[in-house]
Amino acid sequence: MKSYQRTHTCGALRHSNIGKQITLCGWVHRRRDHGGLIFIDLRDRFGITQIIFDPKKFEQIHRAAEDLRSEWVIGIEGRVIARAEGMANKNMPTGDIEIEASSLEVFSRAETPPFSICDETIDVNEELRLKYRFLDMRRGYISKMLTLRHDITHEIRSFLKNHTFIDIATPILCKSTPEGARDFLVPSRIHPGHFYALPQSPQLFKQLLMLGGMDRYYQIAPCFRDEDLRSDRQPEFTQIDIEMSFSNSDELMTLMESLFSDLFNNFLKLKIKTPFQRMKHADAVEKYGTDRPDLRFGMTLCRLDDQIKKSDFTVLIDALNNEGCVKAITIKNGAEFSRRKIDRYIEFVGQFGLKGLAWIKRQNNTFASSIVKFFSDELLSEIAQLTDLQEGDLLLIGAGPDTQVNQALDHLRRHIAEENQLIPSNHYSCLWITDFPMFNYDAQEKRYKAEHHPFSMPMEEDLDFLKSEPIKTRSVAYDLVINGLEIGGGSQRIHCAELQQQIFEVLGLSAQEIESKFGFFLNALRYGAPPHLGIAFGLDRLVMLFGQTQNIRDVIAFPKTQKASDLMIEAPSKVHREQLEDLNIKAML
Amino acid sequence: MKSYQRTHTCGALRHSNIGKQITLCGWVHRRRDHGGLIFIDLRDRFGITQIIFDPKKFEQIHRAAEDLRSEWVIGIEGRVIARAEGMANKNMPTGDIEIEASSLEVFSRAETPPFSICDETIDVNEELRLKYRFLDMRRGYISKMLTLRHDITHEIRSFLKNHTFIDIATPILCKSTPEGARDFLVPSRIHPGHFYALPQSPQLFKQLLMLGGMDRYYQIAPCFRDEDLRSDRQPEFTQIDIEMSFSNSDELMTLMESLFSDLFNNFLKLKIKTPFQRMKHADAVEKYGTDRPDLRFGMTLCRLDDQIKKSDFTVLIDALNNEGCVKAITIKNGAEFSRRKIDRYIEFVGQFGLKGLAWIKRQNNTFASSIVKFFSDELLSEIAQLTDLQEGDLLLIGAGPDTQVNQALDHLRRHIAEENQLIPSNHYSCLWITDFPMFNYDAQEKRYKAEHHPFSMPMEEDLDFLKSEPIKTRSVAYDLVINGLEIGGGSQRIHCAELQQQIFEVLGLSAQEIESKFGFFLNALRYGAPPHLGIAFGLDRLVMLFGQTQNIRDVIAFPKTQKASDLMIEAPSKVHREQLEDLNIKAML
Repeated sequence: MKSYQRTHTCGALRHSNIGKQITLCGWVHRRRDHGGLIFIDLRDRFGITQIIFDPKKFEQIHRAAEDLRSEWVIGIEGRVIARAEGMANKNMPTGDIEIEASSLEVFSRAETPPFSICDETIDVNEELRLKYRFLDMRRGYISKMLTLRHDITHEIRSFLKNHTFIDIATPILCKSTPEGARDFLVPSRIHPGHFYALPQSPQLFKQLLMLGGMDRYYQIAPCFRDEDLRSDRQPEFTQIDIEMSFSNSDELMTLMESLFSDLFNNFLKLKIKTPFQRMKHADAVEKYGTDRPDLRFGMTLCRLDDQIKKSDFTVLIDALNNEGCVKAITIKNGAEFSRRKIDRYIEFVGQFGLKGLAWIKRQNNTFASSIVKFFSDELLSEIAQLTDLQEGDLLLIGAGPDTQVNQALDHLRRHIAEENQLIPSNHYSCLWITDFPMFNYDAQEKRYKAEHHPFSMPMEEDLDFLKSEPIKTRSVAYDLVINGLEIGGGSQRIHCAELQQQIFEVLGLSAQEIESKFGFFLNALRYGAPPHLGIAFGLDRLVMLFGQTQNIRDVIAFPKTQKASDLMIEAPSKVHREQLEDLNIKAML
Repeated sequence: MKSYQRTHTCGALRHSNIGKQITLCGWVHRRRDHGGLIFIDLRDRFGITQIIFDPKKFEQIHRAAEDLRSEWVIGIEGRVIARAEGMANKNMPTGDIEIEASSLEVFSRAETPPFSICDETIDVNEELRLKYRFLDMRRGYISKMLTLRHDITHEIRSFLKNHTFIDIATPILCKSTPEGARDFLVPSRIHPGHFYALPQSPQLFKQLLMLGGMDRYYQIAPCFRDEDLRSDRQPEFTQIDIEMSFSNSDELMTLMESLFSDLFNNFLKLKIKTPFQRMKHADAVEKYGTDRPDLRFGMTLCRLDDQIKKSDFTVLIDALNNEGCVKAITIKNGAEFSRRKIDRYIEFVGQFGLKGLAWIKRQNNTFASSIVKFFSDELLSEIAQLTDLQEGDLLLIGAGPDTQVNQALDHLRRHIAEENQLIPSNHYSCLWITDFPMFNYDAQEKRYKAEHHPFSMPMEEDLDFLKSEPIKTRSVAYDLVINGLEIGGGSQRIHCAELQQQIFEVLGLSAQEIESKFGFFLNALRYGAPPHLGIAFGLDRLVMLFGQTQNIRDVIAFPKTQKASDLMIEAPSKVHREQLEDLNIKAML
């Protein structure tokens, strides 16, 4: 056993192996003493096999087995035997057999773990699980998620290789071009006062690969953002980064649909319908209040501006006059909702700044509400028809500035769906959002910012807006949204230096900034750039989707906390003064 | 054509496609005007296709084609036709056909590139090629190397997946544990005065994965070392990192031999002999003066200490008395080497500190040399027998401190082999070096250092040396050497906290240093650690081996210079003062 080598894993042996002499290695999962016999559940990543130590047959080994404790690592030699009549465990793949141990080697002992490994049902504080990540892995769930992640990436790699994409690694020691998120910086020792930046995405490099004629590229790329973390973000994350030349968004979307069909088929045993539905950004915002609508349920937003104007409901009319809007959602069979429940929804939308919700119930062939007095019968009928408000339904109406109403009703819609279990389980709605705005306007900084990034191609029919009304420019960009989650996004890229320069100018970059940050890239575009486009998916989110978990830390081997710390290795940490001196920097405390 | 979509690549069309209406996109590789016709070689990553613009058939298109210049990016529609009798080009896969263009779209124009794309035979300064990496890629060679790299990594991934290894990404924002090379540091914004370090290898994480029961892991891992660069090193490099539990070095080596058989078979069409030869570290140093011997040719080193002692050659005897050694190499048919040539070899070894070389020619049935007078006839015969010095051969003898003699004669041996073309081409000698010393002694710092790293398992029979004479401890470590290049290495790891602690102590780490750097890891070893071992290969070197290039920058998409700069994006660069303030650091200039 000094050779540390097993003949099988703990998940491998079956009825057909009975009689065989084997060697297994693993962790002591459970020990039971029963009528003089010692039973060990021996565990590895592949499964659990029951080992039996019989004092009548191997006395010395049995005595040694008495010392065994949970999580000790051992190797045993023995013979595969059938479990006694009625003792088979149908819930375990190895449940028909057990091993009669004839030899035992203890590789290492274990202190009592800070939480139970063998009982996964016990809830353990996440900080503790992160500090002892290697123990958490042994509990099975994290290991299952990491295996799924591996299988998904392997499937994606094979798919892309079959479609002539080449995996090319781009540098991690890059250049800081602060636009959007904050960069992680790396001081250069050789060039004092100079810094590398860790990449937020391989954007420019992948475009340069297209300019270099690599034609189709992909990368499972590590990316970095030094942001204050939301709970579903990590400072380092992984992007499935795909770029192709001489193609268009239709071809790319079709290709990605085929990839996702494979993934759904392999990892959820689901046939997903293709082509995926497509929706323009403006329509999504109008009908769902968001650019990543969840289409698994109804309750679309219905604009009532014109109807309100015809009413006497002055509060809402004021909102409209204040450049706002009025939108409503219809809840089927919601007329039976209690007043208290509706009040809770009103409280809910308050979080998003909405002052209230008006409501109308259609019940007992009448419109019941304190606000019906503001509406003529004719107007109520018109509203009912427009919002599909049938007998037994409830209409909730919000008013205010556009973005506020959209945000509040989007959240409300999802909240109601979840609370009232209106979301079909094991159903996946895949949706392309297209025709994104190219820019948004940052009122604080008084300048345009790129909605995605400055390299997206404006839609041809909108090119004139670049000079007149940049905010109206849309880009050839697309996001893939599944069940309301943004899974990925991309765009046709600009392949013309003049147009790229113009975009930088709209974004308010000075000639000098353009030159120092993107000069080399603009120059590169001048040597024959192919039309190209791409898409990137968040691998972490993708694994969360297929692994059906809400916690991003479940799908990363060694995740960081919301404070960007690794609790296990205790990073970041202090370093030697000499290290900082070598790098020509000083820590300011 | 606005759809940017092609029907075929430029390498796809054949005789069987004649008559077909197609769309191609690519770069203008060459243009020729010939008898009123315009010929364009249209290029993409997949090949070159000849396009013909005929003014008699498509006058307007022909006129547009007159403007085309090298490296413009275009799309054409047209019909596949057979080349005229006798005009087929047998050297091109598409040489039987050409395209009669009926439509032309210019996607982008190109300025004149700083070097020729279409003529790869023109030698271009590497700095210029790096600055315009995207143009260098178009020349074909770099693109071929990147494709090879992709194919090799895909093959390795598939092989490892088939052997139940799981690809798991470990963090890039790690902790600084300065041992060996210098770390790249990343200041933490959230934790002022604290730093992440970029990983020099995923050593601890992969061991923690084994402790976590992941059983078999691999990763194509980005690694970082902030070193003054030798020409064959990069600050960021890629490691194929493999770790497995419950196994031993024999099983691991056999598995790797099977992987390399596949690689040699697929990428060099060579059947490589397995099992690979194995050689103990001490034997390699004794016989070749190095731990990465090239076995494609002979000229082993032969120790002559005993023989010299019996001679009157006082200079060499002095060297021996000074704790040195005397070693010789025999050059078959070297007796005909001129005096001048031998003088050049003497000069050559001078670089390595060797004061000279004595030599003996066996020629015309006698031993010719100015030093034969120091030896009896009997002693000369003994030396000749020992060194296999036959009629016509030359013996070169070096003396001095062991490491100096070994280094000088190792280099001399390879130098002579290259100069005299003694190395068979297209031959690969694969060799395992085993039984490495665990430590070396740093005379300057007056302490032991780990030869590989502190996590290698000492050989069981040497455990007692840890206390008495650490320098004599060998480890269960192994390197794979191919044609004298170290392709990879690894070891059985320590899976016992007490032994690990003892190693840290031998290395002179204080209790406090051990705790702050490796405390968490020692602690982890106490919760049930499986026996485990691993190996890592330098991916860059591997691709260089199979791509048959000596330049590491050929196999990396965007390499850095020896000064760790990216000449294209101009990194590292200065950053905004605010960025440094956010990070609580100050640049000291």
